[in-house]
Formats: sequence, structure tokens, C-alpha cells
Amino acid sequence: MAQSVIGTPWHRLNEAVPEEELKGVDRYWRTANYLSVGQIYLRSNPLMREGFSREDVKHRLVGHWGTTPGINFLMGHVNRLIADHQQNAVFLMGPGHGGPAGTAQSLLDGTYREVRPDITNDEAGLQKFFRQFSYPGGIPSHFAPETPGSIHEGGELGYVLSHAYGAVLDNPSLLAVAVVGDGEAETGPLATSWQTNKFMDPLTDGIVLPILHLNGYKIANPTILARISDGERDEFFRGMGYHPYNFVAGFDDEDHASIHRRFAALLEAVFNEICDIKSRAAAGEASRPFYPMIVFRTPKGWTCPKTIDGKKTEGSWRAHQVPLASARDTPEHFEVLHGWLESYDPEELFNDRGQIRPEVTAFMPSGELRLGANPNANGGLLRTPLELPDVRKYEVPVAEKGHGFGATEATRVLGEYTAELINNNRDSFRIFGPDETASNRLQPSYQVTDKQWFGGGVYDDPANDEHLSPVGNVIEQLSEHQCEGLLEGYLLTGRNGLWSSYESFVHIVDSMVNQHCKWLEATVRHIDWRKPISGLNMLMSSHVWRQDHNGFSHQDPGFVDILLNKSFNNDHVVNIYYPADANQLLAVAERAYTSTNCVNAIFAGKQPAPTWQTLDEAREELSVGAAEWTWASNTATGEEPDIVLACCGDVPTGEAVAALDLLDQLGVKVRLVNVLDLLKIQNASENDEAMSDEKFVELFTADKPVLFAFHAYPGTVRRLIWERPNHDAFNVHGYQEQGSTTTPYDMLRLNDMDRWALAADALRMIDASKWADQIAEWEQFRLDAFQFAVDNGYDHPAFTDWKWHGASDAGEVTSATKMTAGDNE
Amino acid sequence: MAQSVIGTPWHRLNEAVPEEELKGVDRYWRTANYLSVGQIYLRSNPLMREGFSREDVKHRLVGHWGTTPGINFLMGHVNRLIADHQQNAVFLMGPGHGGPAGTAQSLLDGTYREVRPDITNDEAGLQKFFRQFSYPGGIPSHFAPETPGSIHEGGELGYVLSHAYGAVLDNPSLLAVAVVGDGEAETGPLATSWQTNKFMDPLTDGIVLPILHLNGYKIANPTILARISDGERDEFFRGMGYHPYNFVAGFDDEDHASIHRRFAALLEAVFNEICDIKSRAAAGEASRPFYPMIVFRTPKGWTCPKTIDGKKTEGSWRAHQVPLASARDTPEHFEVLHGWLESYDPEELFNDRGQIRPEVTAFMPSGELRLGANPNANGGLLRTPLELPDVRKYEVPVAEKGHGFGATEATRVLGEYTAELINNNRDSFRIFGPDETASNRLQPSYQVTDKQWFGGGVYDDPANDEHLSPVGNVIEQLSEHQCEGLLEGYLLTGRNGLWSSYESFVHIVDSMVNQHCKWLEATVRHIDWRKPISGLNMLMSSHVWRQDHNGFSHQDPGFVDILLNKSFNNDHVVNIYYPADANQLLAVAERAYTSTNCVNAIFAGKQPAPTWQTLDEAREELSVGAAEWTWASNTATGEEPDIVLACCGDVPTGEAVAALDLLDQLGVKVRLVNVLDLLKIQNASENDEAMSDEKFVELFTADKPVLFAFHAYPGTVRRLIWERPNHDAFNVHGYQEQGSTTTPYDMLRLNDMDRWALAADALRMIDASKWADQIAEWEQFRLDAFQFAVDNGYDHPAFTDWKWHGASDAGEVTSATKMTAGDNE
Repeated sequence: MAQSVIGTPWHRLNEAVPEEELKGVDRYWRTANYLSVGQIYLRSNPLMREGFSREDVKHRLVGHWGTTPGINFLMGHVNRLIADHQQNAVFLMGPGHGGPAGTAQSLLDGTYREVRPDITNDEAGLQKFFRQFSYPGGIPSHFAPETPGSIHEGGELGYVLSHAYGAVLDNPSLLAVAVVGDGEAETGPLATSWQTNKFMDPLTDGIVLPILHLNGYKIANPTILARISDGERDEFFRGMGYHPYNFVAGFDDEDHASIHRRFAALLEAVFNEICDIKSRAAAGEASRPFYPMIVFRTPKGWTCPKTIDGKKTEGSWRAHQVPLASARDTPEHFEVLHGWLESYDPEELFNDRGQIRPEVTAFMPSGELRLGANPNANGGLLRTPLELPDVRKYEVPVAEKGHGFGATEATRVLGEYTAELINNNRDSFRIFGPDETASNRLQPSYQVTDKQWFGGGVYDDPANDEHLSPVGNVIEQLSEHQCEGLLEGYLLTGRNGLWSSYESFVHIVDSMVNQHCKWLEATVRHIDWRKPISGLNMLMSSHVWRQDHNGFSHQDPGFVDILLNKSFNNDHVVNIYYPADANQLLAVAERAYTSTNCVNAIFAGKQPAPTWQTLDEAREELSVGAAEWTWASNTATGEEPDIVLACCGDVPTGEAVAALDLLDQLGVKVRLVNVLDLLKIQNASENDEAMSDEKFVELFTADKPVLFAFHAYPGTVRRLIWERPNHDAFNVHGYQEQGSTTTPYDMLRLNDMDRWALAADALRMIDASKWADQIAEWEQFRLDAFQFAVDNGYDHPAFTDWKWHGASDAGEVTSATKMTAGDNE
Repeated sequence: MAQSVIGTPWHRLNEAVPEEELKGVDRYWRTANYLSVGQIYLRSNPLMREGFSREDVKHRLVGHWGTTPGINFLMGHVNRLIADHQQNAVFLMGPGHGGPAGTAQSLLDGTYREVRPDITNDEAGLQKFFRQFSYPGGIPSHFAPETPGSIHEGGELGYVLSHAYGAVLDNPSLLAVAVVGDGEAETGPLATSWQTNKFMDPLTDGIVLPILHLNGYKIANPTILARISDGERDEFFRGMGYHPYNFVAGFDDEDHASIHRRFAALLEAVFNEICDIKSRAAAGEASRPFYPMIVFRTPKGWTCPKTIDGKKTEGSWRAHQVPLASARDTPEHFEVLHGWLESYDPEELFNDRGQIRPEVTAFMPSGELRLGANPNANGGLLRTPLELPDVRKYEVPVAEKGHGFGATEATRVLGEYTAELINNNRDSFRIFGPDETASNRLQPSYQVTDKQWFGGGVYDDPANDEHLSPVGNVIEQLSEHQCEGLLEGYLLTGRNGLWSSYESFVHIVDSMVNQHCKWLEATVRHIDWRKPISGLNMLMSSHVWRQDHNGFSHQDPGFVDILLNKSFNNDHVVNIYYPADANQLLAVAERAYTSTNCVNAIFAGKQPAPTWQTLDEAREELSVGAAEWTWASNTATGEEPDIVLACCGDVPTGEAVAALDLLDQLGVKVRLVNVLDLLKIQNASENDEAMSDEKFVELFTADKPVLFAFHAYPGTVRRLIWERPNHDAFNVHGYQEQGSTTTPYDMLRLNDMDRWALAADALRMIDASKWADQIAEWEQFRLDAFQFAVDNGYDHPAFTDWKWHGASDAGEVTSATKMTAGDNE
């Protein structure tokens, strides 16, 4: 087991929580509330000493109070639970706007000052702590990577449960307390993430405790879950396999001691139920448990003024952001703020030197059990390098340079390599898929592991189910959001993995990938104490060029453009690979599986295809990013070509090689350059790991025409090489958004990516009038080949049966194989 | 009421469905199943006459059988319901893979041959109908726009309920039968879309009837909802406000007549319940009804061979795609296929001439009640132009050219204009928002309408709720997916609308927008019979340059790059507008609200800002796409500038004008060019509506340096103008992915977009050594201004108090106003 197990997990208390501890929790709550209001409002005089005035209020009041006091309450109680049970736990804050609660927690548990010694333990430090919040040169207003204990910023809503479930996988001792905002609960990703409990194994995985923070309002509207009846809401959660506990407080005059007593008792009951689930699982119970969850109904902005200017504030959408926005400008509002801060009795909480009194924090856990210190919230601490198989075992033989259309499904080779990897790293590598793991040819993994699925219900069908098991390294929920989110949670807690998507549908998680990149960017730029986490590996297969049969809706190669926006800043949080064959894919995987603090986007086909390069050649090309394929080029050593044929992506590369074959027969001198690591050709000014301009010229020449056959939209290359020498000589062929339901050849034809289109355009670039007849002949053939497909229902043999003139027959397959039914889905 | 009401909606039958009709439905089912198998497998001899052999099987077998027979069953019964009740109804197919069912339905109701007369009503036509399916030059395998009756392709899963709910809004007579795949149900967007029933008004909106197609399997795995207990699933749906009806068939020997009888009775009961809901609503009942829905549990691939090669096929994931993939190559498999086709008794269904027998279709509805002819599935037929208010009423006065920082929130002006628009078009214009309608300043609408919200529950709070009502033109569900999906459904049924998003989070719907664009592309390219639908208007506010306080996670202007991938093909399905001020925004809105078959992406700020142009000037600039602002340029007429300052986006434009001010003081000659319609500067070769190269040179010069201050990532401009004259002289400043939680000025500074950075770079481009001292001075000032903000908590007055040297004081506001708390959320 690679994970560090801290504490004594799942240990029952079996007694009521002592009143003294509840007093501690109340002190925690008041302190955290005071610290939160202070962060939002105060720039100086943090203890409201003599002379406290409007001048001490920030000029610009930003932040969000509404969700914060409820989270402070929960964090206090979770701290108590952890301490009493010595329970390994992390806290995920769905409504990340409660950032002040996260920093307050970290200040209270001592971890904040460990990573930020400039926040000294005195009044000056407190002032700095307040002032920095959402302030120029300061810290974000969310539960951001800058805050110890966070693995989930919550800036974009909807992902807290997928992160929590990802965190507890293969982490059997971990309790992940996940607060779900009731606004957040309306998002699609959150709505489906409740169902991920169906995959969790109560024995080998940890436990997620969702707490629905039902404070009634989003920004300006009531929330759905707050307005339906209690009965409906209970049914909703039971219907998703949870046992809901309802807790209501703050709407009447109940004293806080009573509220704390009730909540602590509830939390104990819930924790005991979790311990029971763990015990029953250890005893071999096979039925799926109903996991407890808590519906925490409290007023929005709890403990802030009940009304401001006669308008209901506590318990209203008006408490969402900054309830007293004019506290600096309006004396009356300043007095309200003053009274609000005094209501927490700060003199009981802070000593004269501005230090938090020891009786506030006495009940809290220590060491790695502290929320801010739990290594699961700084996963790099737990990360150990994967035990990599010898990739050479999976190399596809290239007997002679250049095959024709081959028999190798590249992603299946990746699947075989990854299967051994899983076998070597059973507790720390996972595959996630939106029901496409087999479709994308990663099913060799099923030789060593299963698809995790904890059905345990009346509709199980063991006679016909294949590779389903309560424990396994593959999870398939038909939700790209869940795949991305679960993998993020798994990586952020120190592990490794891969998820695969149909290329077109990976756009579903554009925004999630953006957010993960931003987390990484912030980390690599200025958060030294966060240790590197493993790269997030995404395989985009079933790609645009072989979605001919699934049609236009399945054809979009534009995810790369999302990634480019995160890749011109030398943060190096993005890698973009277009392996041209199985061996290149192996070389890429070997690198990706050892990478850290990045997203690795790998675009690779799953259809039978030729293998061009040996593994050594692939590795060498990968080290540079691109290479001339000298065996394909027909220029003599040192000879300048008439044209450079550049290619990137498996299918465009095959077409470029075939086009070179056509041009070679005409005596045209062609250099073939393959690009594997796309960002290596990026303008050197934008990427300090890109190749030099000298190398760029060495590959692409200083002044020859360059025809670039590119996997995705042509604009991508154009924006990448804007400043490169000779860039105006590049003519990029890419996907032109011309799709339909058709054949592999016709997909190419429609987008001018077939070999005849490439060859004809090459001749145009060299000398259009000289080659007019040849160009016309090829253009006619293109139409004829389409008509052949229409007449026959399969592609022209000139397309399917072509092989490189130097190729052996080893890789040859029949036309039938090439034309088998396409991708599933 | 703009909608055509066909039929006699909500009419009870009050008697059992006659057996003769049930026989008709059974014939329909068998015919549709035969037509579906035929489409997937057969290329010739569609009636299996003498000599039927493997040669008649397609070479390449693609398509999806699994979901199809269940949908055929449902379509048959829905046809019966429509005919008996004369009910206005549309059918949405969540699992779009059931494409063969959609084309079969349209062939059966007669609409297919109306739009495709080449599919003749004889054996040759039938052969063509079979062969074209997922075939080169043929039709898509999904319920695509090519098929009459479709408003939802289903190629990407998850959106069927949002489309259905969008379709029934303000469409009180419409029944939208929405089949939800049980795999699809695992997606996030689908999971949250169930909850949209909370917004529906049973009186003024139509009714969505969801049917969960519970066939147990996705591609290769069981589905979650098929494996949980019936009790859990019932609770799940009741918990979301539905009344679930369970129907199970196909797992035993029950004869088909009995199954049809049971389902018809169920559908009658459900329909009666819907009629009751409508009646109670008409009688004024205020409580939210539980809407009926059906759980339709039948075997995957129902009626296909139970086993193939000894492996369970019907009722298994093996039936997902093409169960007999080798039917052409393997005689045994061909015989299985033959027997399968014969099992439908085709001789009872088709006459000798290959025509469907009249007794098959006798029970079906006629005219516009046919699913393929319902005008709600060809919304352009119902669309009427909006009654536009006079936009001039909302023009912001520009007393003197060029203000300083002004007091106008541009999107609030849009909100005022849109409010009158709503008032003029109450049944055909809606705003959707993810709880950001007010945050994005569209709340003037609340002067004329409300936020639709059908709470009707114990937790209603009328004393404190504002602008909530069972009927209203605004809907706010905290889900970008729902906003986009509801608006798509509303537009596709002939209406109009707008939704707004924080710019960063619009990436959440990247993939949905891609899919809508693809629908439109297919339509404008080759589906003449689909009449144009209204443009889909998206307002991206709370944009990157004013998300300083919300921090890095809220800063991403990259949505434009998704749109660009749909905008280089002369389909003109995308428009991208960056209005620089309120009057430009009005001019854009006026155009967008009258546009058709496109997505209008409008990026506009909501913070107080200057107004630069009159409405007439804005309109004139919009007609070209860009304009020189001669009042700002300091060149004499006809004089060439030292440099062109180009700008696009409200904040970059303000900074460019201020930079010009700085340069003017040095005597540098500057031309200012503002770009409003981004695609008008796109390479003319990629966009036949872009400006000519001559116009481009007229604006940007033939050879002068151009400094371009751009709202989004710089790469966007680079890829747009790749082929334009003088493109290598463009130096683009854009968002450099440098964000944090800071101030408005500092956001600009971090990304070299502030006026001093622009001016300094302009001097570098002109003569770096000559201007070295000035450049150094400005660079120092930039740091000083940052330090000022750190020291004071607000931005330097040189930034906030600047105004254009020719400006009057009319638009001036205090620094305090400029620095109020930022955007909500």
C-alpha cells in the first residue's frame, strides 16, 4: 500500500462528546467567523483596539460571507471528530467562495504560519492575514492551492464530490468530508457525481461524507434543493443510495451550545454508521451500503446582522457576498460591522498580543492529522514513482522501414503496456473511462484487473457480466466530467492514472481541464511547499479522422486549442502529443507516466495502422519533439528538398508518407518531417522548452515551401509558429469542419487531407502551371475514388491497399480488416 | 400567442385502446424494426426476394441496433396516442444512436418522402433508403437534422431533457416525449436536467413526458439506473418531483399483443394524469404537480437473436452496435440475420412493389400532427420576427468625443433594451441564466417580467423573494448546461432568447455549442426544408479583465477559440462581437436579435465604463466590422501614422485610447482602429464575409507596425490574420494567463495590457533606442502603481482618474464608484 495511513481510522468513540470540547468547537467557530469577517472587511487594527474606525475598513470590499460561517461551523466539528477519533481526514469545500473559512482553519491548526512565516503570530501578523485576502499582491478569495489543506479550490462549481471520491479510491483509511453547496448542487457534474457511490468498495476505498450545505440561496435566487419538501429531498438522496440525516439550526433562538451538542451527536452517529459499514465490509458483506450524508440547513450568512437597512440579510441571498458594502463610507454601516465583530467576543479568543488563545485550539488534532497538514491534501508528499514495465517488451517490430496500412491498433499496444503497469502498481494507478475503455482498446488491462463496480443489488447479472468486480483498477461512469474529476482527485492525493475519451467529446471537460491547469500553474509558480503531483494523462482516441461512420457530431479535434491557451507561459503544465504510430505512443506513455505537474494530452488512433518507427527512433524523436524521417525523404544527404512535407497525427502522417510516394514517382524532392510533441515547434519566445529557431530551420528549411498535414484545425499550427523563420511558407492542411457519415477515405477527401490532395497541393506550391495536368488527374481521381465508395460501400483499393514502396508484407492486412465496423458508441 | 396550436390538446380518450389499433401499433413496430435492421445491414434486395444472399449485405456494417427496437416500440405507441387524442407532440430521442428508428418513423408517417422524393415508394426506393444509412454520400446514423421530426440529434449525450423543456416553454399545447437513455442518464447535464420541472408552469407551458429507456447497458457496461433496486429508483424520481410508472417487458414469453395492450393502457393513464395536471392548473391550483414519467425496462436489442455463437445477445451489451458484424463474411451469421429479418413477417408489412401496406400506417396521425411534420420540429416554420424596440431610446449620450472612465454599465443598457423587447414579445423571448442574470446587469428585465419559478412548496418565502413568479421570461438554474440547452430547445421550436454567463465558465458548454453549430452547419449546407431558426445569443460578461477580485479560476477568455473552429467555412454559423462600449453593444444586440441560423457570442463588460461612440457610429462600424476612430487618431487626413494602435474588447480599447494619449504627448503619430466584429478581420480566404484585403490595408496600413490590444489570448488574432497583408507587423497583446486575486489595474499590468505597457511597447516598435528613457520611466511607473495599490488597497489615481483629453466631465465618476465591490458570485 503506497498510501501513508495516519491516525487510527474508523475508531468509535462510544460516548457523548464532552461539553468542554463543545465549548472548544464554539470558540473555534467564533474565532473562525471573526477571522473571516476580518479578512473580508479589515485592513488594519485587526483587534478593534482604541481608535477602531472606518479608516480600518478596506477600500474595496470583496469576498463572500454567505457560505463562510456554515463552513466554519463544519470545520470546527470536523476538527473535533478528527481529534477524538484520530481519524485520517480531508475537507473539501464545494462552495469555494468560503475561502476565508479555509485560511482561518489553517491559521487555527497552525499550518498556515508553517508555510507563511511572514504571517507572524502577533497583531501585525493578524493584520497582514486580514489585509492580504483578495488584495493586490495577496491571496485568492477561494479555497485555493495557496491554502494548506485544500485539494479543491471550488472556484468553478460542481466538482467537489468527484474530487472527494477520487481522493478516497485505494485510500481505505481516508475520510473525505465534502461540503456541497446547494447552488453547486444544481450543476450537471455535481448532480451525477452523487451516483459515484455505486463504484466504491467500502473495504478497499475510503469513505466520502457529503454534507449538503443547504443555506437556501445562490447569488440571487433560492436553490432548488432548499425549496422542495423534506420528504422529496430525503427520497432524492435515498434514491441515490445515501442515508440522509437532516440537521436544521439557526432559524430560531436555540443557543449555540445546544446546536453544537446536537451536531456533535449527529456527527458521532454518522461516523459510527461509517464505522459499521467498514466493519461489515471487513466481515465480507457483499451488499452495497447506504452511505450516510448530512443535509445541513442553516441560514445563509449565519451570525451576520439579521437585517441591514431594514432588509432581511441573515438567511437571505443578500448575505451572499459582502453584506455591508459601504462599511467604510457610511458611519451607520460601520457601526453595524463593529457590532457584528464584537458579537464573537474577540477578547475571549485573542490575547493582547493578537495571538489566538490556547483554549480555542486545545481540542484540535495535531501533527499530520491537522486538516492543513494531512498529506492527502499535498499529494506530492505521498507520491512514489511508478514501477514502470520495460516498454521495449511492447515494441512493435518494424522489420523494414515503412509499412503499408498495418495491423497494429496503437492504443491496444498502449493498453498492453498499461496493463503491466497496473499489475506493478495496483494501489496507485487507475484508468477511468466514460464507457469507452474497451472501445478505445485499453481492454488488455482486464487481463490483470477488473472494472470496479459495487452493484450488490437485485439486478446483478454475474452470468453475463464480464470483468466487473467490487475491486478493480478501472472505473467506467458514462460521464466525462466524472472521469476527469475522479482522476484529478486521485492525482491530487498522490497517485497516478489515465482516462480516455472520444476526441470530440473531450470538449465536455474543457472547463475542468482549464481549472486543473490553473491549479498547477499557481502551484509551479509560487507554492513551493506543494510537492509535485503526477501528470494527468488523457488519451483522446476514436479521433476525428476515423469517426467517418459516427458522423459529424463525433468529429471535432479542437481540444488542442484549449490546451494551447495554457501553454505559452513557460509553466509547462501542458503537453500535447500526436504519436504517429504504436511505438511513438509507447515512448510518449513512458514519459507521461513519469511526468509531474502537468496535463498530458495524447491523441492516438485505435484502428489498424502502420508502424513506422522503432522505439529507439521514437524516443529520439520525442527528445527533440520532431524529426526528419530520412528513410522516407528522397533527398540526398545535405540536399535541399523542393518541398517539405510536415505531418502531425497518425492519419495525416500516413497520408503524408503516401503523398511523398506519389511525388517521388514524379522526381520531386521531398523531405518528410514528423512532429510528435506539438509544443516543441511553438515559437521559442513563448516556450523556453521549444526547439531553437536553428533547429526549426534545420528541419523545415529556411526558405522552402512547407506543406503541413495536421491532425486538428489548421489555425492551431498557424498560431503556434507565428514567429518562426519561414512561417509564411507553411501551408497547413487540417480538419476543415467538413464531416458527414461516410468512409475513412472520404473523411480525408472532404478535408483535403488525402494523399492526392496533399500531393496536388505540393505540386501547386512548387510550380502549379508545370504540373497542371498531374494535378488535374489527381483531382479527378479523388472524385472517382469517392464514387467508387458510393458504388461499392467500401473504399477504393488505391487507398486501402497502398503500402510504402519499401515495405515488407509483414504488416499487411486485408481490405476487410481495414473496413471492419468502426468504433463502438 | 405566436405558436401554432395544432390538434386538440389534452383531450381525454376515456376508453380502452381498441385492439385493432394495437394491431396497427404492432405492425408499425415490426415494420420499423425491419426497416432498422435493413438500414444497418442491407445494401440490396431489401425485401429478401429470390436469391437473397450475403452479397446483399453491406460490406461495412455500422450503426447501433441496441436502443433502436425500444424506440421503435415507443414511437409506434406515441403515434397511436397522437392520433387518438389529436395531440400536438414532438418526440426527442436522447440515445441518438437510434437513428434508424427516426428515419423509419419518418418513412412510415410519409414525411421522409416529402423531403426526399428520390426515396421512391417502391423497391428501388426502399433499397436506396437502406443503403444510404451511414454510407458514403448518405445520411448520418443518428436522429440528425436530416431527419424530419428531429430537434435533437443525440450524437453527444445528455441534453435531451433540456431540449425538451426548452421546447415546451410558452408552448402550452405541446407534449414533448423525451426518451432518456440509461447510459445518457449518467452524464452530468442529464442528471441535473430532471430538476428543470421546478421551473415549469403547468398552465402556460407544455408538458415533458420523460421515458427512461432502461435497457440495462451502455456500450460495454451495465448502467447505474438499471442495477439499483426498483425502490431506490422510484425514490430517486419521486425525490425529483416525478411520479414514476414502471413498465417491464421482453424478459419472458409474454406475447406482443399483451405487451402492447399493457403499454397502451399505461400511456393512457399517464396522459390522463397529464390532462388532470393541465385541468388543475387551469382551475388555478398553485401547488407544484408531480409530473408522470415512465421507466421502460426492456432488453437491449429487443427482438434480435437471443444468442449469437452461444453468447447472450438480446438483453446484453453485445447488442449495442451491430450484433452480426460478420453477416457478409460468415454464412452461418448470414442465416441468423435472414431469420431475424423474417421474424418480423415482412410479407405482412410490405406489398410486392416494396410499398408499406396501408394497414400498417392506418392508425397513424395525419397532417401536421405527424411526428415528422410537426412544425415544432422545424421551428423556423413558426418563427416570426421579433418586434424590436427603437434601440435609439437606449443610446448613451456622447456629448463630446471620448470620455474618461465613465459611469455606464454597458450590459445594464443592454438589459434595458432587452426589457422592452421582452415586453413586446412576451411569448417568444426568454433570458436564461446560471444565477447570474442580475450579476451580469440584465435585471432591468424585472421591471417587465419575473423569474419563472414554480415552487409551490413548504419552503416558499414570498415575504423575501423578489421577482419570482410561476410565469416569467427569465429562468435561472445554476447550470450553464441547462441555460444553453433550454435556449437551444426554445430556438429550435421557433422562438428567441439570450443567456448570459461569466466569460470564464462558458467553457462549461464548449461541447454543447460545438454540437449546436454542427446542427446549424448541416442545416445551412444541405437541408433546405428546415427553415431558419433564430440566432443563439450568448452574453459573456464578468469577463477576464474585471475578474481581478474573484481570482485566477475566474479568468479565461478562451471561448472565442472554440468558436473560431466553426468559423472558417463560410457557413457563417458563428458571430463574435467585442463591443467597446454601451452603444456598440446596442448595435450588436439589434443585429443579433434579428439573426438566424447562428450563434452570436457577445463579450461585454458590466462595470462602469466610458462610452466612446454614438449609436450611428457604432452601427456604421458594425457594418464593416472595424473602424478607425478618427477623433482619437492624431494623424492628419491622409497622413500615415508611425504606428497603428488596434484594439478589440472594451477594456483593451480603453487602455489603447489611454496609451494613445500618452504617445500623443510625445508627438508620436498614432492611428486608432477598433475591431467590433472579430471575424471581419479574418483572412478573406477563410471567410467570404470578411473585409477585403484592400480594406484591411486601408485600416491597418500596408507596412506600419501594428500594436493590437486584444481582449482574449493573443494567439487568436495570430491565427485569424495569418494571410492578411502586413500580418508580420502585428504585435498582439492579450491575456497571458497571468492572473491572481488583485485589482483591475494590476490584472492589466500582469498581462502587459495597461496603457503604459502598450505605450512602451509602441515606442519599442517604433524606435527602442530613441525612446529608451521614456520606456524605462513607464516601466518604473507600472511597478510604482502596483505598489500604490498594495499600500493603499485601491488603484493609483493615474489609472482610475484618467480621462480622454477631449472629454467633457459628463461621464466622470468618483474613484469610489470605480472601485466598488466586484462582480457577484
